[in-house]
Amino acid sequence: MINFPVTPINKLNQAPDRAHYDTKTVYAILDASIVCHLAFIDHDKPFVIPTLYARDENQIIIHGASTSRLICCLQQNNEVCVGVSILDGLVLGRSVFEHSVNYRSVVLFCKGSAVLNNDEKKYALEKLTERVLPGRWQDARKPTAKELDVTSIVRLKILSATAKIRNSPPEDLAEDCNLPIWAGEIPICSTFGSPVPASNLRPEINLPEYLLEFYNKQNKT
Amino acid sequence: MINFPVTPINKLNQAPDRAHYDTKTVYAILDASIVCHLAFIDHDKPFVIPTLYARDENQIIIHGASTSRLICCLQQNNEVCVGVSILDGLVLGRSVFEHSVNYRSVVLFCKGSAVLNNDEKKYALEKLTERVLPGRWQDARKPTAKELDVTSIVRLKILSATAKIRNSPPEDLAEDCNLPIWAGEIPICSTFGSPVPASNLRPEINLPEYLLEFYNKQNKT
Repeated sequence: MINFPVTPINKLNQAPDRAHYDTKTVYAILDASIVCHLAFIDHDKPFVIPTLYARDENQIIIHGASTSRLICCLQQNNEVCVGVSILDGLVLGRSVFEHSVNYRSVVLFCKGSAVLNNDEKKYALEKLTERVLPGRWQDARKPTAKELDVTSIVRLKILSATAKIRNSPPEDLAEDCNLPIWAGEIPICSTFGSPVPASNLRPEINLPEYLLEFYNKQNKT
Repeated sequence: MINFPVTPINKLNQAPDRAHYDTKTVYAILDASIVCHLAFIDHDKPFVIPTLYARDENQIIIHGASTSRLICCLQQNNEVCVGVSILDGLVLGRSVFEHSVNYRSVVLFCKGSAVLNNDEKKYALEKLTERVLPGRWQDARKPTAKELDVTSIVRLKILSATAKIRNSPPEDLAEDCNLPIWAGEIPICSTFGSPVPASNLRPEINLPEYLLEFYNKQNKT
């Protein structure tokens, strides 16, 4: 575990007790989600685009069509800011002022570069696939040269980062705690519904073991 | 229902069949989530920050501490891009190339302005509170003048927007459909766990009716 440098760029001024700058905390949050929001500048305007990602050591891997604005902007060594947030619950204080949410979030400050080599592209796609569903890469039909050609991969090197976590009950003022108002937390979690086979799936194909395991694991936690 | 202007800024070039520019679709997605990711430029660098929001007609209301960088940047009539995304499921094609996710997302191009009047601030806080939990504003202890002073409200006027929706099974090539590989969708949804009362809640206070209704309604959909 190391700490990212804390500079005026990534230093959390509000609620500094919720800030974390160590790779262990940052990586754990990154590894708990699959969707990030990428912010970048194009023609002096801010853009934000949601996309799937996977972490590989101190880099974020994303993919997209070779012709997309996002990909074109990011692979030119431009600065990009990456946000990932997981909402864990609603926090209801007695006072409106003490309403909040429990969450885990990270903001990453990165520089992007294109992955051009086909073997490295395949490696990145394997990381992206396995991140979402372990076992799937081995089972699925691998990308052809043509498919690799129209897919761009960008690696975003994490230069600095801030994790921000709130995970506590409401913090009402002492004088509010006797008010006749319900206070507490409402947990939120993401759950997976029953798999829906494609309508044209060959009828003899059963749900593979890795998918059963994934499903049971995800909905237990 | 009206359409937002389609310009080079918000026009979706990739998968244009997934794009929607009408207020009905954009507002429906905005009204289905409570967390957005705001992208803005500060000292020529892109930043992205997750925050709670509520829609009020053609504006997004956000709040924060008066001293935060986010609030300071946004209230100066600066351009801000807002991303909201809801992940509805994993889509597993037979080929790696046809793996995807089902989702509803919007990207908004906005300009921000500060809300300075205390009555208007209260109105905005009521919108934010009621958006998350209808009935809560009436029940909770309202903000004091001091609490309003340290809370900033910013309204982001939506100048243009793009909604992007994918809601379909995998789209494998015809020649892949006979492969002995499971294909289909795994739905994802956000669910609410049982309310956890604050440890210092007065024991005679039961869960209020609006919270029971909220809980039942959210977990039914």
